[in-house]
Amino acid sequence: MYRTNTCGELNLSHVGKNVTLSGWVQRARDLGGMTFVDLRDRYGITQLAFNMDKNAELCLEARKLGREYVIQVSGLVAERESKNLKMPTGEIEIIVDSLKVLNTADVPPFTIEDVSDGGDELRMKYRYLDLRRNPLKQNLMLRHRLAQEVRRYLDSKNFMEIETPVLMKSTPEGARDFVVPSRMNQGQFYALPQSPQTLKQILMVAGYDRYFQIVKCFRDEDLRADRQPEFTQIDCEMSFVDRDDIIETIEGLMKYLFKTVKNIEFKDAFPLMPYSEAMNFYGCDKPDLRFDMRFVDITSIAKGKGFGVFDNAEYIGAICAKGCSEYSRKELDALTDFVKKPQIGGSGLVYVKYGADGSIKSSVDKFYTPEDITVWLNAAKAEKGDLLLIVCGPKEKTLKALGELRLEMGNRLGLRNPDVFVPLWVVDFPLLEWDEESKRYFAMHHPFTAPVDEDVPLFDTDPGKIRAKAYDLVINGVEIGGGSVRIHSKDLQSKMFNAMGYTQEEVDYQFGFLLNAFRYGAPPHAGLALGFDRLTSMFAGLDSIRDVIAFPKNNAGRDVMLDAPSVIRDEQLKELGIAVVAKKE
Amino acid sequence: MYRTNTCGELNLSHVGKNVTLSGWVQRARDLGGMTFVDLRDRYGITQLAFNMDKNAELCLEARKLGREYVIQVSGLVAERESKNLKMPTGEIEIIVDSLKVLNTADVPPFTIEDVSDGGDELRMKYRYLDLRRNPLKQNLMLRHRLAQEVRRYLDSKNFMEIETPVLMKSTPEGARDFVVPSRMNQGQFYALPQSPQTLKQILMVAGYDRYFQIVKCFRDEDLRADRQPEFTQIDCEMSFVDRDDIIETIEGLMKYLFKTVKNIEFKDAFPLMPYSEAMNFYGCDKPDLRFDMRFVDITSIAKGKGFGVFDNAEYIGAICAKGCSEYSRKELDALTDFVKKPQIGGSGLVYVKYGADGSIKSSVDKFYTPEDITVWLNAAKAEKGDLLLIVCGPKEKTLKALGELRLEMGNRLGLRNPDVFVPLWVVDFPLLEWDEESKRYFAMHHPFTAPVDEDVPLFDTDPGKIRAKAYDLVINGVEIGGGSVRIHSKDLQSKMFNAMGYTQEEVDYQFGFLLNAFRYGAPPHAGLALGFDRLTSMFAGLDSIRDVIAFPKNNAGRDVMLDAPSVIRDEQLKELGIAVVAKKE
Repeated sequence: MYRTNTCGELNLSHVGKNVTLSGWVQRARDLGGMTFVDLRDRYGITQLAFNMDKNAELCLEARKLGREYVIQVSGLVAERESKNLKMPTGEIEIIVDSLKVLNTADVPPFTIEDVSDGGDELRMKYRYLDLRRNPLKQNLMLRHRLAQEVRRYLDSKNFMEIETPVLMKSTPEGARDFVVPSRMNQGQFYALPQSPQTLKQILMVAGYDRYFQIVKCFRDEDLRADRQPEFTQIDCEMSFVDRDDIIETIEGLMKYLFKTVKNIEFKDAFPLMPYSEAMNFYGCDKPDLRFDMRFVDITSIAKGKGFGVFDNAEYIGAICAKGCSEYSRKELDALTDFVKKPQIGGSGLVYVKYGADGSIKSSVDKFYTPEDITVWLNAAKAEKGDLLLIVCGPKEKTLKALGELRLEMGNRLGLRNPDVFVPLWVVDFPLLEWDEESKRYFAMHHPFTAPVDEDVPLFDTDPGKIRAKAYDLVINGVEIGGGSVRIHSKDLQSKMFNAMGYTQEEVDYQFGFLLNAFRYGAPPHAGLALGFDRLTSMFAGLDSIRDVIAFPKNNAGRDVMLDAPSVIRDEQLKELGIAVVAKKE
Repeated sequence: MYRTNTCGELNLSHVGKNVTLSGWVQRARDLGGMTFVDLRDRYGITQLAFNMDKNAELCLEARKLGREYVIQVSGLVAERESKNLKMPTGEIEIIVDSLKVLNTADVPPFTIEDVSDGGDELRMKYRYLDLRRNPLKQNLMLRHRLAQEVRRYLDSKNFMEIETPVLMKSTPEGARDFVVPSRMNQGQFYALPQSPQTLKQILMVAGYDRYFQIVKCFRDEDLRADRQPEFTQIDCEMSFVDRDDIIETIEGLMKYLFKTVKNIEFKDAFPLMPYSEAMNFYGCDKPDLRFDMRFVDITSIAKGKGFGVFDNAEYIGAICAKGCSEYSRKELDALTDFVKKPQIGGSGLVYVKYGADGSIKSSVDKFYTPEDITVWLNAAKAEKGDLLLIVCGPKEKTLKALGELRLEMGNRLGLRNPDVFVPLWVVDFPLLEWDEESKRYFAMHHPFTAPVDEDVPLFDTDPGKIRAKAYDLVINGVEIGGGSVRIHSKDLQSKMFNAMGYTQEEVDYQFGFLLNAFRYGAPPHAGLALGFDRLTSMFAGLDSIRDVIAFPKNNAGRDVMLDAPSVIRDEQLKELGIAVVAKKE
């Protein structure tokens, strides 16, 4: 051991003790007679003191230390004269009597501080330096803590962690697979799993009853800010359960995590919201319920007064922004611009200011009397001082635009506090989605998702209306996870494939392996997967998952630190029986 | 929930309770008036009773149940007339009053019993049925338990579990990489990690101090019985430590696992054995110390009596087989044949029978007097009734052959009890190995392995004699894990590369990325990786790792259940910018 203690643990109770510490030089301050060095390791920072009068040679040595040098020191723990009570070690310092440089360090290309001066690409390239910074270290420690607690909880509930293969089989549906050429089976490829979905269902057929895994999954998709080609899931499956059993189990896990990791207690059950309600009142399937601002449908009460835009709209919806009646022209213009952005898709914005004095002022005063508008205000339960924001147009598109406007107002009004967590379950998703282009239904979740029992007759009359036994866990507007009850009956599965227009041949080709297993006694089962990266970033109060991953890839799918991917040797290609095809310009 | 209880938990204390169970039909016995069904789930087996007199309809239903049908039953817990005290549930049965078939099952292609009638390939193809068998279930439960306890222990010791990428960079040295073509960076490939070696060292540079991960690793090698293309490691790395700190830490982990999982207590420290001792006295670097039977070097005392075979041998070694003096001609011939097998490599076997009556009989009586041979017997501390087995020839080859003979004798004498565990650390491995073909040294472990301090001067005189700060954990003749102290000093690293004959260019190309990181303050660090599959199979008392893996691949690297690898679509190849090259016949 190069140390007797870490840099995070010494305090007044250790005064008078001789200790040895090792770590990195965070900073050095030369005050003439004294030189102070902050020594850092994973556990904290301890101040080292060198006295020019008492030991000039050593003090001069200390003055030569550069940033991020790795050193070992021995000395006496002493009470500090000027204490720093913000640090656990802030009441003591080490009067150093020996110093050894274990390693020197080049000058880092950016500062190793909570807020660094390095740009994104530079910090990605020198990830090992970026990872020294406190915020990243805290994120990875949180991730570690969460992973341990997830396992502890699920283990206590009789879940078995079972590893499924990474070298899997390519699946013809879903997102793009990463593939791995096989040397021993030339011309053939393994695929990296997009999820262990089929294998966890196989494990239920095998009788394992309760499975989980914290597992890497892979999708070769074009990357967005919050996507990584490899990501981590908490994957679960249970047998002999129905929807509410899964919800109860996972809710138990989430409550345990919030309690043990963040000391936040959720006493009540997380609310269940049908998909239709989420869409109609929040304009998306993952509503942020940290604030209310539900949509108010004023279609029927706003039509028929001669305002063409409203009269021709399929849907007219409003949200009530509390206390915003004094918004300026500029602010309202900004909101109008926001709504009209292509990615938002609204055609415009109508406002009603309900002044603190009871006055009513709107952008459609020409068409509506104050009495007309009062009806809207009442519908929206608006109070004096509030602002009504109204969007209209085709229903689906307008709901979506209003949903975005609602979130924007939430941001502006500071209603989306990252320290507040509001979870809910979105349920009753549609089982099937109609695809206009191919004129057929697709499974909204996947083709093994079970329908709600009472909706089964709709297979014959109106498949699009069937609700699924699917569920998403949503926290603060982020989909943390989702899953479904699976179909375990052959008859029901046939109905499902029929509704999707599959031929028997297609079914066999795409799903034969799993259906074969199902012939040998498949139990009723259901499952769910939680996005572990996203869960961690939510617990960390971050928007992006990148900084809760030790070695993430950039938007081009590259690891700029490792410089991967890279070209491989010709012999290697030859051995694998593949060739690189010249890219067309 | 489809049940109130599992099939493993009901006992006399539940008599009189109404319960609902779900599970698989293990077997049914029709005794005329009564039909008994054994219902199985992950947790156990519960007997169901159907009475023809009391409920003929239900009893007839029960008689129609096939093997592996999935059913749900409700009924009353009752005390059994004829108890089975071997089973936790053997004192009770369920008087069933309702029965529901949740799913039928085709007749399984082999029996779902502790010992199955199915062949290897068949059981691999229907792995989901094989996994229903008790021995496999026990293995996977053991694996789960071990994984949880490993994490619990390392977490308690301040290790952080940090996930490293699966999509890595191809490394030009070591075993063959599996590669993944990049669609976004055409012509370039990711590689799957053979181990997170470089990244865990990077994490030490990043200051994470104590890292671990239970992680999948990949090697595209031709498979042997105990190799899988993907395997799992318990990977550890620590900063500011030396060899004995790692040994102490990992030994603590192992003792904890033995205690908590197998209730076996190791009070003393695991012994340390230098590599040279292991080779000279056991003929291999992973001696099985469940039995002694050390080699006795009789080279000097057996030469010079006119027996040409011995006189010309570089080395003559003996082992003493206790109580085997009465071995028959046939048994001795079998041992001779064993020694002469090509994979053992011995040229022949000389024996000395030290009879219970004190008589001495050997296969070289012509050349040696009983007095001559008594010297050997004394050297080997042989007692009356023992058998001396002697092999001679070139030293290295003979030590190996004698080692195999020793293990064979251990097997024959029942000295290798799978319930007895004898661990040791093999240390002081050579740092470098001379390769005759390329006339250069290779790193025996890897090029970052640190030499023993006092051996550093040998770089200039006799590099082959340098001992490494490397260590293997060996239990019962199996290498469970290994690791080394890493070089953290630039100068020492240069010496190492020089000794291996590397040019600066080669060093930069192969190791530049890690050496770059080391420029920014690398702490002294050391680590180790344990083979998790092997650890589990050892705890399970198995020889092969295949049955501690849920979905293993066969010797051709195929998953016969999934039928992977498989061909992929042309569009997929096109998107990736690669082509399959026709295989030459």
